[in-house]
Amino acid sequence: MDLKTDLKTYLGEKKALVEAFIIGYFEEPIAPGILHESMKYSLLAGGKRIRPVLCLTAYETCGGNGQDIMPQAAAIELIHTYSLIHDDLPAMDDDDLRRGKPTNHVIYGEAMAILAGDGLLTEAFRMFSNNDKVAPAMLLQAINELSAAAGLFGMVAGQAMDIISEGKAHDKKTLEFIHRNKTAALLKASVRLGGILYNADKAKMDSLTGYGEAIGLAFQIVDDILDVTGTTEELGKPQGSDENKNKMTYPAMYGVERSKAMAKEQIDRALQSVELFGPKALWFKEIANYLLKRSN
Amino acid sequence: MDLKTDLKTYLGEKKALVEAFIIGYFEEPIAPGILHESMKYSLLAGGKRIRPVLCLTAYETCGGNGQDIMPQAAAIELIHTYSLIHDDLPAMDDDDLRRGKPTNHVIYGEAMAILAGDGLLTEAFRMFSNNDKVAPAMLLQAINELSAAAGLFGMVAGQAMDIISEGKAHDKKTLEFIHRNKTAALLKASVRLGGILYNADKAKMDSLTGYGEAIGLAFQIVDDILDVTGTTEELGKPQGSDENKNKMTYPAMYGVERSKAMAKEQIDRALQSVELFGPKALWFKEIANYLLKRSN
Repeated sequence: MDLKTDLKTYLGEKKALVEAFIIGYFEEPIAPGILHESMKYSLLAGGKRIRPVLCLTAYETCGGNGQDIMPQAAAIELIHTYSLIHDDLPAMDDDDLRRGKPTNHVIYGEAMAILAGDGLLTEAFRMFSNNDKVAPAMLLQAINELSAAAGLFGMVAGQAMDIISEGKAHDKKTLEFIHRNKTAALLKASVRLGGILYNADKAKMDSLTGYGEAIGLAFQIVDDILDVTGTTEELGKPQGSDENKNKMTYPAMYGVERSKAMAKEQIDRALQSVELFGPKALWFKEIANYLLKRSN
Repeated sequence: MDLKTDLKTYLGEKKALVEAFIIGYFEEPIAPGILHESMKYSLLAGGKRIRPVLCLTAYETCGGNGQDIMPQAAAIELIHTYSLIHDDLPAMDDDDLRRGKPTNHVIYGEAMAILAGDGLLTEAFRMFSNNDKVAPAMLLQAINELSAAAGLFGMVAGQAMDIISEGKAHDKKTLEFIHRNKTAALLKASVRLGGILYNADKAKMDSLTGYGEAIGLAFQIVDDILDVTGTTEELGKPQGSDENKNKMTYPAMYGVERSKAMAKEQIDRALQSVELFGPKALWFKEIANYLLKRSN
């Protein structure tokens, strides 16, 4: 870990490693070709790769070399990508644009988009289950955690609550449920997985858990704020789309200023949580500050 | 294994054990309640539970007690159920009826049906990853095999090919690809998983592989034939629906009589494959014969 590198370079390098791994992994043709294309289209449509980067950072902050868990970090990105494809479907959020590009079903049709999502989710577990450098028991524990956070005790539950809450009277409990599950759970898991795969001790795991939870919540609050204050160009999708869908968001519930303060509170909590790692916590801290200040 | 029991009792007992496990597993409320309900609706809509039964039978034929791998056997049924929910969606096969009941999206809407499928698929891997009675390395290998067979090297690939081949000129290569992947891959894996979880030796695994592959192919040929010759009441869905959708099927390609002979050939191959197990192969043989003669 070269402490002289700045965050932009650090994130860029990690992102490049993750993308190179994904590109290599999906190089072999898969039949039918259109399914393969459809998965690659969304996998390679850009994005910050923040979940794998968090996983790699956690593993390295604990003392490991990120290269050793690249399949596991990349698998989280497959799950994130599947969730975007399914969320964008006409029956769900009905979004035509994502990161400035047409969404998967706009290009490949609804059936192929559903299957591309199903394929990515299933393949993520295959990718995750293979790694000679990690003890089988740790891999299993990680799969258990990942499937909870991506499914019924996280993302899928959050998205379901989001869908059924559209247009309903906003209440704080539901808003928190949605955000805690839909976005924060997988971000938190991304951080914790790095620790689990390293077989980190309880003190380190507690530190990672606090950090992951706090940045997960901050991430979604910032997302909500950007939907109100960002430009369509910055966001790569129509500005104000949450409001148009009458989604429960932090700015709608608390106003923009209070929401900003709430995000800041979480980031402060995140910074506090990783004090245990001393100077090694540098990248965790830089990432937390970046997540607060990002514009897309 | 009581050799005096007849097959109907055997299948009924195993099915009851699998269903009791699934009911117990999903007893705890999951939020939102509608997601929970939607998953349970399809999970408990009936069905032969043939995949878990095959997995349990393989494990017991190798020498184990099926109770020890109940979570793993049941997890396969979660994956099968998710695939039915997604296959029935309007954007996919657009089926309103399954096992004589309205399909998931007809009751819960498309968004919730997509999420119920996503939730079941993800939870299946969580369920599968937990078992103190099986060595972690064997569980990992099984997860690897299951995710291949359920995803890009099996079911998802087969369903994708099925969707894009609708209405196209039928050819034997595509027909075989669809059947080998869409249905046979998960059936074959169900049998092999029992052996992997038992840590069976190579000779036993070869025997299970041959059996699983053969009954997998026979199963789909019989399904195709029943769609032509069965009644809507027996099938629990409209008779002739494959033909109406211009699906590639064995009867459409080879005619009913030749298809019946092909199914019989596979069943003979299956019976041959399990000779290695001697008298212990009884249930495998009975199941193979039953799969050939079933009427739904």
